[in-house]
Amino acid sequence: MSIANPYLMFLGDAADQLAAKTANGVAKWRPEWCLGQLRFDGCKADVGLPDMTLEEGAAAGAKTLVVGVVNQGGYLPDTWISSLETALDLGMDIASGLHMRLTDLPGVAAKAEKLGRTLYDARHPTRDFATGKGHKRSGKRLLTVGTDVSVGKMFTSLAIEKEMKARGMKATFRATGQTGIFIAGDGVSVDAVVADFISGATEWLTPDNDDDHWDVVEGQGSLFHAAYAGVTLGLLHGAQPDAIVLCHEPTRPHMRGTPTVPMPDLQAVIDANIRAGQLTNPDIRCVGVSVNTSALSDGEADKLLQELEAKLGLPCVDAFRHGAARLVDAI
Amino acid sequence: MSIANPYLMFLGDAADQLAAKTANGVAKWRPEWCLGQLRFDGCKADVGLPDMTLEEGAAAGAKTLVVGVVNQGGYLPDTWISSLETALDLGMDIASGLHMRLTDLPGVAAKAEKLGRTLYDARHPTRDFATGKGHKRSGKRLLTVGTDVSVGKMFTSLAIEKEMKARGMKATFRATGQTGIFIAGDGVSVDAVVADFISGATEWLTPDNDDDHWDVVEGQGSLFHAAYAGVTLGLLHGAQPDAIVLCHEPTRPHMRGTPTVPMPDLQAVIDANIRAGQLTNPDIRCVGVSVNTSALSDGEADKLLQELEAKLGLPCVDAFRHGAARLVDAI
Repeated sequence: MSIANPYLMFLGDAADQLAAKTANGVAKWRPEWCLGQLRFDGCKADVGLPDMTLEEGAAAGAKTLVVGVVNQGGYLPDTWISSLETALDLGMDIASGLHMRLTDLPGVAAKAEKLGRTLYDARHPTRDFATGKGHKRSGKRLLTVGTDVSVGKMFTSLAIEKEMKARGMKATFRATGQTGIFIAGDGVSVDAVVADFISGATEWLTPDNDDDHWDVVEGQGSLFHAAYAGVTLGLLHGAQPDAIVLCHEPTRPHMRGTPTVPMPDLQAVIDANIRAGQLTNPDIRCVGVSVNTSALSDGEADKLLQELEAKLGLPCVDAFRHGAARLVDAI
Repeated sequence: MSIANPYLMFLGDAADQLAAKTANGVAKWRPEWCLGQLRFDGCKADVGLPDMTLEEGAAAGAKTLVVGVVNQGGYLPDTWISSLETALDLGMDIASGLHMRLTDLPGVAAKAEKLGRTLYDARHPTRDFATGKGHKRSGKRLLTVGTDVSVGKMFTSLAIEKEMKARGMKATFRATGQTGIFIAGDGVSVDAVVADFISGATEWLTPDNDDDHWDVVEGQGSLFHAAYAGVTLGLLHGAQPDAIVLCHEPTRPHMRGTPTVPMPDLQAVIDANIRAGQLTNPDIRCVGVSVNTSALSDGEADKLLQELEAKLGLPCVDAFRHGAARLVDAI
C-alpha cells in the first residue's frame, strides 16, 4: 500500500521548526509531491511550501494530508481532529507520523471507513511479516550504517539514490523510518516491528530485483548503540547489502541517549558491520564514509575529511555539502 | 505480575507429546509447583503428573491453570474455552503460551474481568518498556548464548541456577521465552517486544541486585541466525553479562529454518559475543560450553567434549547429562 501523492503537509500549530522536521524532510526530497502546507494561527514552523487551506489543497488535487509534525504532550487537540475529518470529507487520505494511531481515533476511523479513505500510520507496521530466510536475492543493495543514531543515514541514502538516478542507474530508496516512508511513499518502520521479524520485514522491503538495480536502504541505529543495536543487526542481515556507507557526526561527545557509552572508532564500526553482514552476504564491503560536518567550518570540514580519508583508505565526503558523487563512483 | 502457583497443567486433547513440550518443561523444572495435569479423552501427551479434573485441581489448591500445550491449526475448540471459563469460576487464574491471546477471547476476558481473575499471555508482553540505557547495574549476570536456536539455552540456564542454589549462591533464573516464564513465574518474551525495546526490556528483567547475586538469563536465538540475530544482540546488550556460556547442538546440518546458512564455528560464536557484549560490559568472558549430546552415544559424547575442550580451552559439558557443576566452578 503506497501513500497516494501529491501531498498537503499538515503543520497545525507546530511549536517550532524542529516539530516539523518530518514535513521538512519530505518537502526537501519530494518537492514535486508537496502542493502546500496547512498552518494554523500561531504555527511556528514553515517548510517553504505555499500556504493552503484544506479546501485549497483539495482543489489543487492533494490526495493525502500528511501529518508531518509532532505536537507537544503527545495528545491531539480538537482542532487537529476536526481538520483530519474535514480532509477525509474533501476526498483525501491521511498519513501520520505520530505515535498515536489514526486508526485509534474513533471519529476519524469511522469516517475513513464510511468514505473508503485510507489511514496510513507510518510509525506502525500495517501488515504481518515472515521471519527472515537469509537466502540470496537478485539485484544489488546498499545500506547506510552509522556510528550512532541521527547521523544522517536517511539523508545520505537519499543523496545516493539521487546521484544514481542522475547517472541513469536503476535505484530505489527503501525507507525504514517514518520520514523516509513519506518520502518513498512506502516502507517499513523497522524499529516498530515485533523483534522476531526485523530481518524478515527488511527482506520483504528489499525483494528480488533486476541484476543491475540498486536498493538504497535507509539504515537505523548503530551496532554500537546499547538501545538499538538489535534493530541495526536485523536490518543488516535482512538487507544483505553488497555495499555499506558509514555515516558519522564528528562533534558528538557520547552515544545519543546513553551518556555512559562513548562514540566508537570509525574503523571498528566498519569492521563490525562487515563481519556481521557476511552472514547473509559474503561479498559485503564498505565503499565510503559520509560525515555530517554542519557543525564545522568549511576549513575544519575539509581537514577532517582529508584526515579520515587518509586513515580509512576510503572516500570520505559530506553528502550534505558535496553530494554523493564520490560514493557512487566507489561502487 | 507473577503467575500464582501451584499450577494445574492443561493438556487438553494434545495430539502428541511434542505438543505439550512447554508443560513438560514446567513439570520437569518446577515439579513442586505442578499439582496435576488435565487431559481430555484422546489426549496423546502425558507429562507425568497426576490426572485431575478442574474441580479436583481447584480442591487441591491450584491457583493457575497453565495452558502449556499447542493445538493443531491454532484455533481454540469450544471444549478448551469452556474449560478455561470453568477454571475461572473455580477460582483459578489462567496462563497461556498460545499465540492467540486469552484477552482476545470475549467470553474468557469478560468472565475474568467480572471475577477479578488474572489472564497471563506469556507470549505477549503485558507492559511497556523504556529503551535501553546501557549503564552498569549492580549484581552479576550470566547469559546463555548459542550457535543456533533450540540448542538448550533454557535448559542450561536452569541447570546453572539449580547448581548455584545447591551451593548456597544467590541466583535467579530470568526467563525470556514462554516456557521459561511459566518456570520462573515471570519474565519477558523478548522476541515479542517491539524491536526498539529489546535491550530496554532485558534491562528491566535484570535490575540492580546484591553484588554477589547472579541473574542467570535465558538466551534467545544466535548472533549467527539470519532471522533472529537482532533479538540476540539486544538481549546481550541489555543483559550486560559478566559471563556467557555457549550452547551447541553438534549434529545439526545447517542453521534451523535457514538451510542456506551453515552452522558457525564455535570459537567464532564466542568471539562475536565477547566483542559485541563489551559495549555494555567490558569484563564479559566466556566461562564454558554446554553441548546437547542427546543424539550421540556416551562414547561419542565424551570424545566430542574432550576434543572441544582441548580446542577451545574451556570447560565443555553436556548440562543435560552431567549437570552444570563444571560451568559454575569456572565462574
